[in-house]
Amino acid sequence: MGNEKHSPSLQNRKTAAIIIIGDEILSGRTLDTNTQFIATKLTNAGIDLIETRTIGDDRSKIKDSVLEFSDKYDYVFTSGGIGPTHDDITSESIAEAFNLKYTRHQEAYDILDGLYKARDEEMNPAREKMSYMPESAELIKYYPPGAPGFKINNVYCLAGVPSIFKSMVESIMLKIDRGEVVRSKNLDVMLGESVIAGDFDILQKKYPQVSMGSYPFIREGAHGTSLVLRSSDYELLSNVYKELKSIMSNY
Amino acid sequence: MGNEKHSPSLQNRKTAAIIIIGDEILSGRTLDTNTQFIATKLTNAGIDLIETRTIGDDRSKIKDSVLEFSDKYDYVFTSGGIGPTHDDITSESIAEAFNLKYTRHQEAYDILDGLYKARDEEMNPAREKMSYMPESAELIKYYPPGAPGFKINNVYCLAGVPSIFKSMVESIMLKIDRGEVVRSKNLDVMLGESVIAGDFDILQKKYPQVSMGSYPFIREGAHGTSLVLRSSDYELLSNVYKELKSIMSNY
Repeated sequence: MGNEKHSPSLQNRKTAAIIIIGDEILSGRTLDTNTQFIATKLTNAGIDLIETRTIGDDRSKIKDSVLEFSDKYDYVFTSGGIGPTHDDITSESIAEAFNLKYTRHQEAYDILDGLYKARDEEMNPAREKMSYMPESAELIKYYPPGAPGFKINNVYCLAGVPSIFKSMVESIMLKIDRGEVVRSKNLDVMLGESVIAGDFDILQKKYPQVSMGSYPFIREGAHGTSLVLRSSDYELLSNVYKELKSIMSNY
Repeated sequence: MGNEKHSPSLQNRKTAAIIIIGDEILSGRTLDTNTQFIATKLTNAGIDLIETRTIGDDRSKIKDSVLEFSDKYDYVFTSGGIGPTHDDITSESIAEAFNLKYTRHQEAYDILDGLYKARDEEMNPAREKMSYMPESAELIKYYPPGAPGFKINNVYCLAGVPSIFKSMVESIMLKIDRGEVVRSKNLDVMLGESVIAGDFDILQKKYPQVSMGSYPFIREGAHGTSLVLRSSDYELLSNVYKELKSIMSNY
């Protein structure tokens, strides 16, 4: 498989990690698509996603993961557990992790209050709970406005509902500090990975500045391999890609 | 969200964790569907999936995660990084983690050799590499036969290619020790989670033996909530479900 994280050309870039919080993912009830959505956005922004975790609505697991990742990586994103029910404990757990007061954010409250008033509905304790977050947290503004997400230190705390998660990510990506953008080129060949592994290894050793990954697939019963080249040096990338195509045309 | 992991009725069950290994998931190139596939199988087998991690093809991350999970949980499943290229380091990393020799498994070699002979192809070093695994590992037999997966201690090391991953999981599930099977009932209501949170909380407190989760969704622009009840006591589950339906019909 790929060694995209280990190439010298990818050093000194921004790093990120994701924590998906929700029993519904762990039970198999729900397919997590939030990870792929944000992973693609991060890659395009020159930010390397280093690891992800999925955990249940479990206070100590949330706290431990947030503190570990916040220390290790430039950015941490959480998804899920910021809704109105008593089991939505992500915001409170993050406040505890950072030893911050868990308190009502007035602007978040006002946004929620406005949303419910516009629907001729009333604020209630469950709804009010969604405006609670760690003291000094910064709201994530997104459109259309809805459940509040927030940023505290280097941790972005986002909703798990995919449509809201996506709106929040789009908003964050407009402002986040990006890394050096890495471009990629992809060549699909209808040859098994084990057939081309030797030549591909030789090419990787010849061009260590280009990170190379091979990803086997099966299409209509036949084995194929996606060969992915990545580099921030576009000219080099184009030349190596040509060489790869030429090598593969000899099979 | 749900508190399905914390209900007293779910104590003393088998536990599991998953490690997805592959840069292609972290780059956003590939959507991970293996987690949901095995999560569903585990749930149906009465085994609680407690956490999952996605990491790159990184030796120390593989070793640390495998050792941590092997110690904490009854079953550990890894996906990916057992192919023929030099970057496929999962098997070797697991051998190192358990201080076992990384060696050729004769039966795995014979299976691979047979597969290639049947296709009029030759064994080569990349292909032979797929028969290397920790000493004393047990092969995972599956149909149709292909790349070898193995079990060592409580760790199942599986292929990342979804079709092979699925065949391996189906095979494992025929033999694995199951936990007490928990049944679930699901009620979708076109009411926001914040509307019903109060009543749902009261119901959970009334029946702590039933684990209850609420999962918001948006359908055609309208807010709805999936309410999920889980218990190994089927009669109790049915009665609480009736009570839930009756409560929801009052809105």
